[in-house]
Amino acid sequence: MMLINGETTALLPVSDRGLQYGDGLFETLAVIDGEPRQWRRHMARLAKGCRALQLPLPDSDLLLAEAIQLCRDESQAVLKLIITRGSGGRGYRYADEIGATRILSIHPWPDYPSHYYQQGATLTLCETPLGINPRLAGIKHLNRLEQVLARNEWRGSDIQEGVMCDVEGNVIEGTMSNLFIIEGERLITPDLSLCGVEGVVREAVLEIARQCAIQTSIELVSVERLKAASACFITNSLIGLWPVRRLDDINYAQGEISQDLIQTLKAAI
Amino acid sequence: MMLINGETTALLPVSDRGLQYGDGLFETLAVIDGEPRQWRRHMARLAKGCRALQLPLPDSDLLLAEAIQLCRDESQAVLKLIITRGSGGRGYRYADEIGATRILSIHPWPDYPSHYYQQGATLTLCETPLGINPRLAGIKHLNRLEQVLARNEWRGSDIQEGVMCDVEGNVIEGTMSNLFIIEGERLITPDLSLCGVEGVVREAVLEIARQCAIQTSIELVSVERLKAASACFITNSLIGLWPVRRLDDINYAQGEISQDLIQTLKAAI
Repeated sequence: MMLINGETTALLPVSDRGLQYGDGLFETLAVIDGEPRQWRRHMARLAKGCRALQLPLPDSDLLLAEAIQLCRDESQAVLKLIITRGSGGRGYRYADEIGATRILSIHPWPDYPSHYYQQGATLTLCETPLGINPRLAGIKHLNRLEQVLARNEWRGSDIQEGVMCDVEGNVIEGTMSNLFIIEGERLITPDLSLCGVEGVVREAVLEIARQCAIQTSIELVSVERLKAASACFITNSLIGLWPVRRLDDINYAQGEISQDLIQTLKAAI
Repeated sequence: MMLINGETTALLPVSDRGLQYGDGLFETLAVIDGEPRQWRRHMARLAKGCRALQLPLPDSDLLLAEAIQLCRDESQAVLKLIITRGSGGRGYRYADEIGATRILSIHPWPDYPSHYYQQGATLTLCETPLGINPRLAGIKHLNRLEQVLARNEWRGSDIQEGVMCDVEGNVIEGTMSNLFIIEGERLITPDLSLCGVEGVVREAVLEIARQCAIQTSIELVSVERLKAASACFITNSLIGLWPVRRLDDINYAQGEISQDLIQTLKAAI
């Protein structure tokens, strides 16, 4: 099921700037019992992305109405929302008066094995680096070649996620997730002001952790620090939270405090 | 006129990875008297891009046949060629067996005023930086948000092109062109091993300059050095070569040696 600007179609004009230049944004939402989850947080990130790209934000009531139209019969599914700058302009220059194109589509729920949630996921360190650009950092834009290259560094189901560093070697995120480390009783997640995507669940985890008076901070994280952490976990809108059991040759000890902390956060998001 | 995988249509499935992630490449060719120009060089860059993205290179005879089919009645036009990884895969992971989608389209020739060629173009320094990523440098991929943001920093026709620096402040290229500076009798163009697009005309200019025994080199170029150059010019497949008359508040003196050098190169490309 798909809607483009409210019409049932799965075809887009080639002239759309989303294809021509990746000139747009997207959101991936979990749908449960007919409703898209974390709608407000996804809309807030979309609005931030629209401001960064000087893209008109589609009417949020209209978006919600279309989302509900697609989701209402789904007990568990994925809703993908793409906003592009539409067609028009000359080369990289966009037209002065340009509308946004909105594309909403429903996809099957990825049935992840339950042991990823319980025993944890296995990660690998990717070689593909993330470029640094403060103008594009944080937002979920359509320029995702770095993630495509990183995600295709491995095949098979033994590894669930890849960790990406920026060009200076700082740990930033997973290819499709955000990353948290636990050092003693402290919760740390990498700074995303120069690159990376500010995930909706990352934001929720930070909020909950602060409410629970868990010491949290956003910092530079080196690979050595990631490997030396007492525990780590990854988050995104579809997986929620997966503890990490292994990163290449590093096995994370499942210490008591770390596990309590992970359970607290898992229960709350 | 447009062909997608050989069929006359202007519509692409939304599931195409070119739209979803910018997972693909493009080439923009000048068409003169029914023929795409610099075909061999464009195909060489496309092949390099396909290797960098692990994308299957479409059959070059097929591409040429389709290009000629579109170009044969055009006295002067633009041919745009987009290659995407097609539909398929799961998230950023692409399918093991995936074909490329090829999109060929014809566009009107941009009628640039002749004084850009004679008196030269006016440039401005853009604020949007280019991210550094050696994995994506040089190739003409579909992730072009940086260029979109830079090109839209100015409006109106007084300025023809914007100069972009990388996040470390080195001058790299124009939003849609490559940049050359002349220092005395030496020709210098920025190093593109960390970011930027290796233009087809840039390559031709470097080749011709070497054949003409003009001292050329690829170097780091600072903004100060660009401003202090005796002359500079920009190149791309559609404009060919434009001398630069002005960059913001800097007027380039049209010295005799520089002009001779520019005329030599212009005549040869």
